[in-house]
Amino acid sequence: MLDELPEPIVQAPMAGGGSTPELAAAVSNAGGLGFLAAGYLTADAVRDQLAKTRELTDKPFGLNVFVPERAAVDAGAVAAYADLIRAEAERHEVSLGDPAGGDDDWAAKLDLLYEAHVPVVSFTFGCPPPEVVAEVKGHGSEVFVTVTSGDEAREAVAAGADGLCVQGQEAGAHRGAFDNVGIDHTGLIPLLRKVSAAVDVPLVATGGLSSGADVAAVLVAGASAAQLGTMFLPCPESGANALHLAALAAGDAPTEVTRAFTGRPARGLVNRFLTEYSAAAPAAYPQVHQLTRDLRRAGDPQTTHLWAGQSYEFARPLPAAELVRELAAGARSALAAAARRWPA
Amino acid sequence: MLDELPEPIVQAPMAGGGSTPELAAAVSNAGGLGFLAAGYLTADAVRDQLAKTRELTDKPFGLNVFVPERAAVDAGAVAAYADLIRAEAERHEVSLGDPAGGDDDWAAKLDLLYEAHVPVVSFTFGCPPPEVVAEVKGHGSEVFVTVTSGDEAREAVAAGADGLCVQGQEAGAHRGAFDNVGIDHTGLIPLLRKVSAAVDVPLVATGGLSSGADVAAVLVAGASAAQLGTMFLPCPESGANALHLAALAAGDAPTEVTRAFTGRPARGLVNRFLTEYSAAAPAAYPQVHQLTRDLRRAGDPQTTHLWAGQSYEFARPLPAAELVRELAAGARSALAAAARRWPA
Repeated sequence: MLDELPEPIVQAPMAGGGSTPELAAAVSNAGGLGFLAAGYLTADAVRDQLAKTRELTDKPFGLNVFVPERAAVDAGAVAAYADLIRAEAERHEVSLGDPAGGDDDWAAKLDLLYEAHVPVVSFTFGCPPPEVVAEVKGHGSEVFVTVTSGDEAREAVAAGADGLCVQGQEAGAHRGAFDNVGIDHTGLIPLLRKVSAAVDVPLVATGGLSSGADVAAVLVAGASAAQLGTMFLPCPESGANALHLAALAAGDAPTEVTRAFTGRPARGLVNRFLTEYSAAAPAAYPQVHQLTRDLRRAGDPQTTHLWAGQSYEFARPLPAAELVRELAAGARSALAAAARRWPA
Repeated sequence: MLDELPEPIVQAPMAGGGSTPELAAAVSNAGGLGFLAAGYLTADAVRDQLAKTRELTDKPFGLNVFVPERAAVDAGAVAAYADLIRAEAERHEVSLGDPAGGDDDWAAKLDLLYEAHVPVVSFTFGCPPPEVVAEVKGHGSEVFVTVTSGDEAREAVAAGADGLCVQGQEAGAHRGAFDNVGIDHTGLIPLLRKVSAAVDVPLVATGGLSSGADVAAVLVAGASAAQLGTMFLPCPESGANALHLAALAAGDAPTEVTRAFTGRPARGLVNRFLTEYSAAAPAAYPQVHQLTRDLRRAGDPQTTHLWAGQSYEFARPLPAAELVRELAAGARSALAAAARRWPA
């Protein structure tokens, strides 16, 4: 699949609103690989998005699915965190959500995958068991798994993954680590090296990429394509909300990785909630996500998640097709210039 | 200078023992740019190393100098940290050092720079004032400054720097930030983009690079050369001690950034001392360095600094010239392959 892409550009699946059928189709029509995101949606809502996307493009595209957590969470820690942030909810006149847990409609989404024959399916937050990977592949999809270490790469390839999405610590939004333990800061170039040393499958590189030259960098570092997320957020086809886009456009906040909003490490712009609650936030996903949902929707940029990769200040409101063409042309010219300067 | 390098490989200055005249000369003789490190040495010791290096090569090489801290440290915090770690020193039958501070023989080292006409001088931990930069340049040296942000890049270029060493968070040993505040995790590719957007001077990229493909990656991302440190540590010409080399060769510990050993953020292998004291260590350099010096020399891998970049497990005991040739050839072939696959 990656070998046949006209341009080495993958649009990152952005669960929670960024990904839309319009965005995925525009990227695929421009020669890249667009992605829908099944996370947080019901299987029926994903089915509708798939149908809509197919109306808009006859090119390959992808669908990303969250894998259920494999470890239990500490209910006492979730309750303590709820007590800590309750005053924030009250101040915004919303309630904390019920930290019910759950598996994000996993079984129904697997059924959808078996029925929908999406060209590329990627998994995040873990690797499905080998029999699930085989079943998805058997229904006509190529399977990619998001990894953040050489060990995860080995596990995913052993489970049958056709390729890997290699996510450096520079990436915006959730880290795709299999387990919700610690906060890893392995940068994209070292991670590509570790993964390349561990397995031999096609790699999509992601994390902090913002220009054609950055795309070229990961291609020479061993990736078959570059995946960008934050750069697509201001595209007119994106579903990002106005508050998020305004914070990105301001361009003046650093980014940090935090569990404060969802209970899993995710990179966003530093705001008051992130600063005050990161240290206390438990490793409890999706429980913390559920607790804070309405607070995050209250319209206050200081108490919502403002996901952003480390290069977010370079994002511009270009049509997605134009962005794909600009990235691809920039990558090709950066490669040509460096190869002329340093001939083999 | 960088434009005329036969190979785009810079050997990182490694103060504290890694850099030697033999290593710097071997790298320069192989077509890269070797570096001596003035940090922790007297000006006279540096003078001897310069003379020795000149006996071993007639090619250009560099000398790195630490810039004195511009902020005062909290003496109370240093005393409290000393109380905290005193039992470690007693257990190892050494004394804590006198946290006297000081400027690492700055004035004498500047005099040496004016006298020695080293082809390339790089500064770390800050940027000298414009008149010092001008004086060093006036005595025949090209001046590089290590930066870790776009703001530092602007300050260095405004002060007259000919080029910048752009250090990503992946790098082993000390972060070269101008100020000892916080711990920044900006990855090398985003940092190159931020610095390229801020200034227009030649850039040397460093942090977590371990292979020819990694070198190629930073060249297409906009750097004129790649700087590697950890990869040179096991070379026979390196001055790294046996305990450090054994820990690197074991390859089984993660790396983290800590102030526990020196009071400035530095990346090393996780060991007991790092784990137990990172949270308490004050931002006090060189005072913490002075406190822990003899403890770090006591021969216990659990209480010494084991500096390592994020790709340290790929370091191998090759002669330095062979490593330079391997990196350069790998970079050239990675560029050629990617340029063929994605022609302009």
